Amino acid sequence: MKVRVAVLGATGTVGQRFIQLLDGHPWFEVAALMGSERSAGRSYAEATRWVLDTPMPAAVRALTILGNEATLDTPLVFSALPSKTAGEIEMRLARAGHVVCSNASDHRMEADVPLLIPEVNPEHLELIAVQRRRRGWSGAIVTNPNCTATGPTMALRPLHDAFGVTKLLLVSMQALSGAGYPGVPSYDAIDNVVPYIGGEEPKVETEPQKMLGTLRDESIELAPFVISAHCNRVPVLEGHLECLSVAFARTPDLATLTAALRDFRALPQELKLPSAPPEPLIVREEPDRPQTRRDRDAGRGMSTTIGRIRACPILDYKFVCLSHNTIRGAAGGSLLNAELMYAQGLFR
Amino acid sequence: MKVRVAVLGATGTVGQRFIQLLDGHPWFEVAALMGSERSAGRSYAEATRWVLDTPMPAAVRALTILGNEATLDTPLVFSALPSKTAGEIEMRLARAGHVVCSNASDHRMEADVPLLIPEVNPEHLELIAVQRRRRGWSGAIVTNPNCTATGPTMALRPLHDAFGVTKLLLVSMQALSGAGYPGVPSYDAIDNVVPYIGGEEPKVETEPQKMLGTLRDESIELAPFVISAHCNRVPVLEGHLECLSVAFARTPDLATLTAALRDFRALPQELKLPSAPPEPLIVREEPDRPQTRRDRDAGRGMSTTIGRIRACPILDYKFVCLSHNTIRGAAGGSLLNAELMYAQGLFR
Amino acid sequence: MKVRVAVLGATGTVGQRFIQLLDGHPWFEVAALMGSERSAGRSYAEATRWVLDTPMPAAVRALTILGNEATLDTPLVFSALPSKTAGEIEMRLARAGHVVCSNASDHRMEADVPLLIPEVNPEHLELIAVQRRRRGWSGAIVTNPNCTATGPTMALRPLHDAFGVTKLLLVSMQALSGAGYPGVPSYDAIDNVVPYIGGEEPKVETEPQKMLGTLRDESIELAPFVISAHCNRVPVLEGHLECLSVAFARTPDLATLTAALRDFRALPQELKLPSAPPEPLIVREEPDRPQTRRDRDAGRGMSTTIGRIRACPILDYKFVCLSHNTIRGAAGGSLLNAELMYAQGLFR
Amino acid sequence: MKVRVAVLGATGTVGQRFIQLLDGHPWFEVAALMGSERSAGRSYAEATRWVLDTPMPAAVRALTILGNEATLDTPLVFSALPSKTAGEIEMRLARAGHVVCSNASDHRMEADVPLLIPEVNPEHLELIAVQRRRRGWSGAIVTNPNCTATGPTMALRPLHDAFGVTKLLLVSMQALSGAGYPGVPSYDAIDNVVPYIGGEEPKVETEPQKMLGTLRDESIELAPFVISAHCNRVPVLEGHLECLSVAFARTPDLATLTAALRDFRALPQELKLPSAPPEPLIVREEPDRPQTRRDRDAGRGMSTTIGRIRACPILDYKFVCLSHNTIRGAAGGSLLNAELMYAQGLFR
Repeated sequence: MKVRVAVLGATGTVGQRFIQLLDGHPWFEVAALMGSERSAGRSYAEATRWVLDTPMPAAVRALTILGNEATLDTPLVFSALPSKTAGEIEMRLARAGHVVCSNASDHRMEADVPLLIPEVNPEHLELIAVQRRRRGWSGAIVTNPNCTATGPTMALRPLHDAFGVTKLLLVSMQALSGAGYPGVPSYDAIDNVVPYIGGEEPKVETEPQKMLGTLRDESIELAPFVISAHCNRVPVLEGHLECLSVAFARTPDLATLTAALRDFRALPQELKLPSAPPEPLIVREEPDRPQTRRDRDAGRGMSTTIGRIRACPILDYKFVCLSHNTIRGAAGGSLLNAELMYAQGLFR
Repeated sequence: MKVRVAVLGATGTVGQRFIQLLDGHPWFEVAALMGSERSAGRSYAEATRWVLDTPMPAAVRALTILGNEATLDTPLVFSALPSKTAGEIEMRLARAGHVVCSNASDHRMEADVPLLIPEVNPEHLELIAVQRRRRGWSGAIVTNPNCTATGPTMALRPLHDAFGVTKLLLVSMQALSGAGYPGVPSYDAIDNVVPYIGGEEPKVETEPQKMLGTLRDESIELAPFVISAHCNRVPVLEGHLECLSVAFARTPDLATLTAALRDFRALPQELKLPSAPPEPLIVREEPDRPQTRRDRDAGRGMSTTIGRIRACPILDYKFVCLSHNTIRGAAGGSLLNAELMYAQGLFR
Repeated sequence: MKVRVAVLGATGTVGQRFIQLLDGHPWFEVAALMGSERSAGRSYAEATRWVLDTPMPAAVRALTILGNEATLDTPLVFSALPSKTAGEIEMRLARAGHVVCSNASDHRMEADVPLLIPEVNPEHLELIAVQRRRRGWSGAIVTNPNCTATGPTMALRPLHDAFGVTKLLLVSMQALSGAGYPGVPSYDAIDNVVPYIGGEEPKVETEPQKMLGTLRDESIELAPFVISAHCNRVPVLEGHLECLSVAFARTPDLATLTAALRDFRALPQELKLPSAPPEPLIVREEPDRPQTRRDRDAGRGMSTTIGRIRACPILDYKFVCLSHNTIRGAAGGSLLNAELMYAQGLFR
Repeated sequence: MKVRVAVLGATGTVGQRFIQLLDGHPWFEVAALMGSERSAGRSYAEATRWVLDTPMPAAVRALTILGNEATLDTPLVFSALPSKTAGEIEMRLARAGHVVCSNASDHRMEADVPLLIPEVNPEHLELIAVQRRRRGWSGAIVTNPNCTATGPTMALRPLHDAFGVTKLLLVSMQALSGAGYPGVPSYDAIDNVVPYIGGEEPKVETEPQKMLGTLRDESIELAPFVISAHCNRVPVLEGHLECLSVAFARTPDLATLTAALRDFRALPQELKLPSAPPEPLIVREEPDRPQTRRDRDAGRGMSTTIGRIRACPILDYKFVCLSHNTIRGAAGGSLLNAELMYAQGLFR
């Protein structure tokens, strides 16, 4: 018997990724779909402009899309709702007893809401008890971070543990899919770089400190480092490539740093969660890797790939970091969160 | 009577840009073309796979390409030779009395060779006298910098003068044209970012200090700041967009910094050199500018466009900088160097 | 004294092209702009997301956009309105005495409305007298054809005259800009071809016969040939490239056919209209031209470029035809129509 | 025990596809690799610039590449050699007893060499006996067609059988990968269409008639229809999309035509060959499908997808046809040929 799940915002691109990744999932099965007024009452096949490169799974084609105010009977809910819209709906469902794994930014920075990457801060799930007690909920809200913060935070986990990160300067080259659909007009994308993504840099500059923070007395003490981010849109379909420069409290030599990244394994690997990649961090030795198109699917889009580790003349080290923005950075990240919670008995 | 000029490496992409920019030039006219063995003896039209988007100028079509060992009678020579090849040939011609304006990297960092951007360090042309004396040449070699170093160095000129640059961290998103022709295979370019360009970062990390250095006792004292560069190839045709973070000895407020950039004018503007843009630095206020495709042609490809000036949480300020890599960053930069030298009577 | 003109639908991409092409025009000057409710009352600079690669002309920045029901005092009006919206508004203005040069499809196929390419059917302007008489208007509506029909129709003019076209089969590879802005989502465009453009094929299969038709007794007798069109969207920014196969009543030899295309000149060239290209048809000899990016700007975007003329094993000849879709195929085509009408004294 | 196979031209892009598709194959395993002088003697990992988006299979990394004159002990040989080079080497190996499945064009049109698509003309394998007898070989050469001819020929098989094809006019929009690596320079590809591919049209205009021809008295009587092809290079990575117009001896109605395509099954499906797609032809009903990126991987790159079937005003019907050029159109097609031969006991 699989756990029945609902997907909110099911017709959008992140919603489609949820449905794609849940197709054939060993633990979960899609039982309900929710959508905006425009879609509610229609079949999923009819209401959805499916944009992914694999076909729409047969199992969802005939499901009737429910409106955002519907009552659900699925223990688990994935939210691909746009920010602003997500806030209220997710709270209503958590209050009604559902575990909501949300990709939306609305609740990410709230003190009692886990902002979770299972390889990074699984212990933050203890906040759920706090959240339930404070808010009187039987369900819960758990969030995954912004897609651009995801890869760097995974890379920083072993580095922060071993050497104490003090500064991170990053420049992103982000995929078009990050803007959803229709998203970036092609007339703005072809033969162009847009050096700005509204609202992105503040998220990237604050979310990692929460994830790498320490749970103490029912709240999270932010990790004490500073981030400077510059976010750019480049003409690639999927995959956020980022150039990072990092300073440490205790600067390691290059071999030690590289080993820390390469040897990193964490709870999802230990638990063999269905969506966990064997290697959360893949370190490439070739001078010209990772490349966006060739490496974004590493670990079925769940690994973060690192390359070009070398000294930085200004901070301590610099390197390149690639993460699939709509898999690990969105639906896949949220799914892995749910798998961890399920493995830990947080819902059934 | 226009000055007759020769173009070395005339069939390559930078050579083509020289010929394109010299078409209709008020002071100079193309009188000789040099090429490799493969091309020598053939007409330019026959030997050249013209790749630019404007037609091949009629005036050069019938010119017979000379071999690299030919004797020239043009006072001025532009070199679009590849590095390694350029070194010997340029020296032979300088020794023979020609003024060689070179885009090649071979001689850039030699102590008595000006590495010149007319808006940045026109006084470095005094090195020519040193060069001639030391080497016993009647001609001279003057170089322009690497395309990726060009825009940032122009932007740093007024900032360094006013506030004393101490650190520069930059990440580039470079155009495909920078790799020449055939250059980057399309199968590597489409839907991809390659986070590596062989040999590029060392140039970008050292050339600006020479250009912003001080001429003292017949040699250049390097400007005392450190640069960290990360160079990436993105799928755009022309234009290098770079994200810069800068620290200063005397940190200005935002308005003062912006005004220093916006108000910058220099000798080429004063002399009204034919290729000098009215504004060497254009500061854009919109949050999403400069964009590579939309702004690379500003000032006919000779202006550097700056945007998104804001505080950097790690260094002092960060901003975006765009420069046309094959115009200002290559043939156009070299041409402006020649115009300055001509205006100053260094050849006739 | 220049003729004052208004632009309807001024904020869209075709509207922007009108404004770009009218900047510095020797006969016309922009005096009024109209826009939708969303834009009306705001300055053009404020209301417009300018997407072209040259800057917004200074002269229009401060113009206040009028609503679509405004009264105008400009003799000439260019319409960049979307189809459906255009119909009523254009009729109101024609009734009120304005000459409306429209890029919209609404009135193109009406019996008393000229569907005009000045090189193709200038004599169809005689329909204006019919139109005015029948409708009781003091103004007039004149239309230019669909962008995909434009290049082929220009190419067919000399061929139909000399050899009698009987069949035309064409396959288009159309630019993204043809869909307007935001138009095609980048997620649909990169690394993709979409073999369908809604509503396009019927226009391409019917408009050429009207333009190449014969004015007889105040109406146009359609040219008696049949067209089969297949329209595709490919990832290029501007320029529609089309593969044509043509059959003739009197099949010429290759040299005669080529000469007919190459030697074609028409009334706009004779009158030296400001936007008329010296060569309406440019025939390229190289095996791999025209190429979309390299040839779309030929004749400042007003020439149609033809190449690869050769025998077709099924019809008689096949060749490639390239036309700039938002210049000759939209705003530039409409502007040339207005220039012809002005030269012929149809308004002042 | 798997059949040991060799791959000729193993380091190129088609060679890489062979190796990718053979990884984990149920019947065949890579035992030998051959390459040019430049590669011979080096390990595959060292000699190969791997360009595909999945990692190089571990099993081949350490294989030492043999020179083209080496002796092989594998019953089966796949040839990814470039044309011209392929001819002699393939003959030497066939003479020496190897079954050579070749993607090269050199032998395709020879009278006693099968030009094979298993769904189209499996009976042409009878030519092998003729070939062996005439040439005194113990091995054999079997070829697969040009990538651009492959999809249309598959689509024509059921149509020709039922309705008798008389004319085919096709326009292709071909992927960059078809030119190999480095292949098309990115500076020619981005924002561009090149309406020419050297040597392509003659192949497309002649190979289908051989494949759809009738084996009679030990030779193939060409199918009596005429083809006109226009081949274009568009900026997509993989997948050739083609617009076809077809005339028939016995014109069916639309439903009958569609059913003939949709219901087509052939020998590979019956034999359940490992690489055979369940549906050789997939018919899409949506107006905007197939799209290159979204449908090229249908049937793991082995299905041909058809869409937009409709009447053609000039010939009888027109439709769109998409086939993966480096899978079904190259290495995958050759592999399916080998599977059919193995299933029929032509080697062991």
